[in-house]
Amino acid sequence: MKFDVTILGCGAATPTLRHAPTSQVVNVHDKLFLVDCGEGTQVQLRKYRVKFQRIDHIFISHMHGDHFLGLIGLISSMHLLGRKRDLHVYGPPAIKEVILVQLRASQTNLTFYVHFHETKPDGMNLLVEDNTLTVHSFPLKHRIDCTGFLFKEKTRDYSIRKSSIKENQLQISEILQLKKGIDIERETGEVLKVEELTDPPPTSKSYAFCSDTAYTEDTLQYIQAVSTLYYESTFLNILIDRAVKTFHSTAKQAGEMARLAEVKQLIIGHFSSRYTDETSLLEEAKSSFPNTVLAEEGLTIDV
Amino acid sequence: MKFDVTILGCGAATPTLRHAPTSQVVNVHDKLFLVDCGEGTQVQLRKYRVKFQRIDHIFISHMHGDHFLGLIGLISSMHLLGRKRDLHVYGPPAIKEVILVQLRASQTNLTFYVHFHETKPDGMNLLVEDNTLTVHSFPLKHRIDCTGFLFKEKTRDYSIRKSSIKENQLQISEILQLKKGIDIERETGEVLKVEELTDPPPTSKSYAFCSDTAYTEDTLQYIQAVSTLYYESTFLNILIDRAVKTFHSTAKQAGEMARLAEVKQLIIGHFSSRYTDETSLLEEAKSSFPNTVLAEEGLTIDV
Repeated sequence: MKFDVTILGCGAATPTLRHAPTSQVVNVHDKLFLVDCGEGTQVQLRKYRVKFQRIDHIFISHMHGDHFLGLIGLISSMHLLGRKRDLHVYGPPAIKEVILVQLRASQTNLTFYVHFHETKPDGMNLLVEDNTLTVHSFPLKHRIDCTGFLFKEKTRDYSIRKSSIKENQLQISEILQLKKGIDIERETGEVLKVEELTDPPPTSKSYAFCSDTAYTEDTLQYIQAVSTLYYESTFLNILIDRAVKTFHSTAKQAGEMARLAEVKQLIIGHFSSRYTDETSLLEEAKSSFPNTVLAEEGLTIDV
Repeated sequence: MKFDVTILGCGAATPTLRHAPTSQVVNVHDKLFLVDCGEGTQVQLRKYRVKFQRIDHIFISHMHGDHFLGLIGLISSMHLLGRKRDLHVYGPPAIKEVILVQLRASQTNLTFYVHFHETKPDGMNLLVEDNTLTVHSFPLKHRIDCTGFLFKEKTRDYSIRKSSIKENQLQISEILQLKKGIDIERETGEVLKVEELTDPPPTSKSYAFCSDTAYTEDTLQYIQAVSTLYYESTFLNILIDRAVKTFHSTAKQAGEMARLAEVKQLIIGHFSSRYTDETSLLEEAKSSFPNTVLAEEGLTIDV
């Protein structure tokens, strides 16, 4: 089953000719989730051929312009193109006012309903749950309230081998029990072992998005052992003072975070426009955590 | 002296990979004026190497997203890059709330002052005047309040030929009078004629920007005999019904407007995304007004 992330923008602060501001699409089993929505995101979606009417959930990490200014334009275009499906927006309380003020100013009555869900800047909070996944928010440490987002596949069922159904004349109730990974003890005393009758489900994968944040080990509890971690790397470690002052992180810190959290893969992004080549950021992160990928507009990375 | 317009965006409704939404820079004697500011305008300014901190006046024709959504991003970037100069924004009353709500949401205290000036949807209203030019707004006919903008060079002085100062022993007061184009009658009865002692000033040029508008001959009074007219041409005339319904114009109507207004040059823009090649729009406008130019991102046109 598909579980990947497509980078739409990985620049910091201001859009430039090299980088669009933060936005990415997370595809979990062909459901599309948009994470952050800097100015120009709708054009990036077109550029990388993401069908944006398929997005039903948009997550905004915090109210700095490079993370939310593109939302009103995207919603306006969804409207102009005749969207009917409800849209869910998760973010700080202010995002609702920002959108509604602009819709009112342009006298737009949307053709679809937008549900605004307020995120909380503390603890792990469930935002979305369906039969295949959950999405939680968790706090980051920035100049203003800011959350990350954790996408987690649900554990899938064990799959019963067809031959074993006939051989053991399995009852429906027994099949359901085995699918959940529980051995069966029949009244006859016969024991049917999960590992003998089924194939184990694939390991559940998870993706944690850490938007703008100062480095703090408080974050570890939320991202421990995820399959893939996106972590901001605005600066090289030589600018650690600037990172601390602006509540951002360095590539070195991103690598450390990934190592301590024991994740499988790290993606770094949110690059300061002072870097015209991000190789040095990649090398710095890799010095702590070798399995690091450099974000780049248009790049799709398997979680 | 320079008087030109650089097209930053000439698409309609939604930004696409072919066209950015409406925005253009008018350069009058090296003063830069921004007219409309759709999403992504700040990136277009970078792309076409317009130094955006040199822009002190921004004009917003109306509150449809494709004409104003980029303003907050541009102002934010001016701020992040340390602007100190005051900025003047002219537009419908709602533009002020849209900007202030978003600055508040991001807890941004701008490093510079923004003056908001409300435009009125009727009559010709002076917005800017200095020693070389005036900028007026004038009403258009759209679904919501909408104005065009008229940039006009002031009439410059006649230039006195150096030789004539000595030959006629001109007094300062006489020089000033001749510069204004007024003949001198001395007490002796001697008449000094302007055309014999001076060179006439270059003709004053003018540029009228007609943003989204239905075709109406009410517009003629405001744009009569301008040097260059920008007029929207959202549709081909075969879609005249759609143009009427949505308060837009066709290329044919743009050409008619230019012909009736006796302008010298017409620029057409605001192309519906249904046209993947605008040649047909150009041909249609030219059938009524031959000296027509097709707008295109990055194109600079002498007024």
